[in-house]
Amino acid sequence: MMFKGYPQFENFYKNGVYLDNAATSYPKPQCVIKSINDYILYNGVSSSRGAYKKAMEADYMVYETRKWIGELFNHKKPSDIVFTSGITEALNGIMCGMLKEGDHVVTSSIEHNAVWRCLKTLERDRNISITNVEITKEGITNPNDVEKNIQQNTKLIVFNHASNVIGTIQPIREIGAIAKQHGIPFLVDAAQSAGMLPIDMEDDNISILAFTGHKGLLAPSGTGGFVLNWDGDIKAWKSGGTGGNSADPYMSEITPNKYEAGTMNMVGISGLHASIRYLLDVGVDKIHNNEKEVIAYALEKLESIDGIRVFGTKDPEKMVGSIAITIDGIDSGKGGSLLDKKYNIMVRSGIHCAPMLHKIMGTDKNGAIRIGIGYTTTKEEIDYLIYALEELLKGELA
Amino acid sequence: MMFKGYPQFENFYKNGVYLDNAATSYPKPQCVIKSINDYILYNGVSSSRGAYKKAMEADYMVYETRKWIGELFNHKKPSDIVFTSGITEALNGIMCGMLKEGDHVVTSSIEHNAVWRCLKTLERDRNISITNVEITKEGITNPNDVEKNIQQNTKLIVFNHASNVIGTIQPIREIGAIAKQHGIPFLVDAAQSAGMLPIDMEDDNISILAFTGHKGLLAPSGTGGFVLNWDGDIKAWKSGGTGGNSADPYMSEITPNKYEAGTMNMVGISGLHASIRYLLDVGVDKIHNNEKEVIAYALEKLESIDGIRVFGTKDPEKMVGSIAITIDGIDSGKGGSLLDKKYNIMVRSGIHCAPMLHKIMGTDKNGAIRIGIGYTTTKEEIDYLIYALEELLKGELA
Repeated sequence: MMFKGYPQFENFYKNGVYLDNAATSYPKPQCVIKSINDYILYNGVSSSRGAYKKAMEADYMVYETRKWIGELFNHKKPSDIVFTSGITEALNGIMCGMLKEGDHVVTSSIEHNAVWRCLKTLERDRNISITNVEITKEGITNPNDVEKNIQQNTKLIVFNHASNVIGTIQPIREIGAIAKQHGIPFLVDAAQSAGMLPIDMEDDNISILAFTGHKGLLAPSGTGGFVLNWDGDIKAWKSGGTGGNSADPYMSEITPNKYEAGTMNMVGISGLHASIRYLLDVGVDKIHNNEKEVIAYALEKLESIDGIRVFGTKDPEKMVGSIAITIDGIDSGKGGSLLDKKYNIMVRSGIHCAPMLHKIMGTDKNGAIRIGIGYTTTKEEIDYLIYALEELLKGELA
Repeated sequence: MMFKGYPQFENFYKNGVYLDNAATSYPKPQCVIKSINDYILYNGVSSSRGAYKKAMEADYMVYETRKWIGELFNHKKPSDIVFTSGITEALNGIMCGMLKEGDHVVTSSIEHNAVWRCLKTLERDRNISITNVEITKEGITNPNDVEKNIQQNTKLIVFNHASNVIGTIQPIREIGAIAKQHGIPFLVDAAQSAGMLPIDMEDDNISILAFTGHKGLLAPSGTGGFVLNWDGDIKAWKSGGTGGNSADPYMSEITPNKYEAGTMNMVGISGLHASIRYLLDVGVDKIHNNEKEVIAYALEKLESIDGIRVFGTKDPEKMVGSIAITIDGIDSGKGGSLLDKKYNIMVRSGIHCAPMLHKIMGTDKNGAIRIGIGYTTTKEEIDYLIYALEELLKGELA
């Protein structure tokens, strides 16, 4: 393909431009790839089970990963960092392990299905009740509205930190303060924020932080977990081998073992080990500031195109790198597909597992196109996307 | 270290001899390492979510892995192959999703904690009842004893295919036939057999086969799942995004989506994709026969040493590559540790998450040493182990 006047686009077309970082980050840092490869080639064993040198090296890698995750989120006790197969298991496990018949939950109106479907299922099967706090036009929750909706039987406040569709950041620190005042645990879904926004368990008043490894934390999929800063009861949701206390017919009550039955995803954790170190070394602040510049640039360019509609806040200070748009006259599914086929640009069309938000946006029927900006996305790549969108609009309107 | 008269042992000492394959297989085949590396470098995206080329390539890889797993276990429908984070999640999910208040379960007396603790927890929390069928001195269950223990409210028969301690193979085909006759679903824990023994869903009368990726299937940890050959109800144990039908407030009832909420372990599945192909190409029969030769060799040598006690069957036809021994006068923990420190041999000491079996063996206090033979284990490595055990015995008894 030839791009007259834009020879710099040739390479983008040839190699592809990945703008689906809100789904999973790509590429991973070199150190992550190396760590995975080294683990598979030279170690390859399970943790918490053997007593030989290699097994102890594996144990130490897992321990150090917990410790570094604690550093990243400002939580001191490595044993409070629990690994799961991803944030979906973490969120389900926590909510199912915590909520009882008749409990009430306060949540946002823009939750991802990992929270929303779990709550709906508990409502159906365990008779819990749910209040969805409304969002402003910008896509942000007013903390006062959270407080207003607290009831006597409210046993959990759970909030999405940043939207996986429109990227808006919720005021978790303020919501957390309200939760704390009322003695209600505050669970934060940091799928779209961990590694992208600074998070502080203490200052942000978070009781439990659920995270995934494969997005902003730059590790492979199949990793994630939660940081437990709450001493209430969460029942274990699976039982099995933990490498310790094997004669007990029930799971240990000690964290993290209590929630980590079965052999862990060691390849994944070897990646997480390197990626968390990378984030600590580079600094989440720096990554956040770099991304913010690209987000601001993208928003400005997108808003300047007639025929493109941008949803949610347009303030780069209030969002992470997930921008939802529609293209006038072009169905979102088709638009996403044309960007791939004609320009080798990878975006995500649809309703992004967030049906409530798309209903509010009015895009529940035709979906939207999500542009997922990541830590390696450049302004030049945004220029190429803008060029492609303009060409599409010309073609469709011609 | 110098091995007088055995110069061939120098390399074993230098590089280590891995005999913990019953925990996790190592090394993985080259094709598995390459597949993982290629996926991370050149694809790196999620499956079932995007519509761009790379996403469709990832979808196809996942689909093909299901299809090949179906080939390996003789099950035709790829959509019946469900991926989980490992066999512990699969076993827990199936049993918790299936068993109701007052149900009765028949199982062996040598289950791994992934089955045993889950059943005990359901007994405690959901009032199920459990019958453990006794084993013979060899470690094998008599199928007639299974039939005798079936009750009117027996809703599940669950059996370990091969012991993770003494390697004995249970007569699953015969037990499955009994289950079928009585219309009771038969769940098989193939953690220690998949990829090591031929398994045929039809001929072996298996309703649900739970497997792990990281042992005989030669893939990385964090992979596993089950093959569903039963149309009864198993409730989904977690809810979240599946990439399809996102507006529904509950999980889809369609398999495999129903059980696969959240982003999958794609790195793991890229490894499984290559390892299943490898197993189909090489043939499980061939791997089984090769391993059987090494097992027979090891049994013969071990039994010839005064001071070594071998547990379970001594018939290599009736077992997989997991051999449990004790060393007279040496505590098993210490013995395992000495093998590592003095000889760089990696084995596993303890009770191997199988407390019931160790009770039967009389090793519940001091444990045993498990020698885990894998697809790459050689007779020369067994010679080195034998040499080391003899030296240990000399040293201790001197």
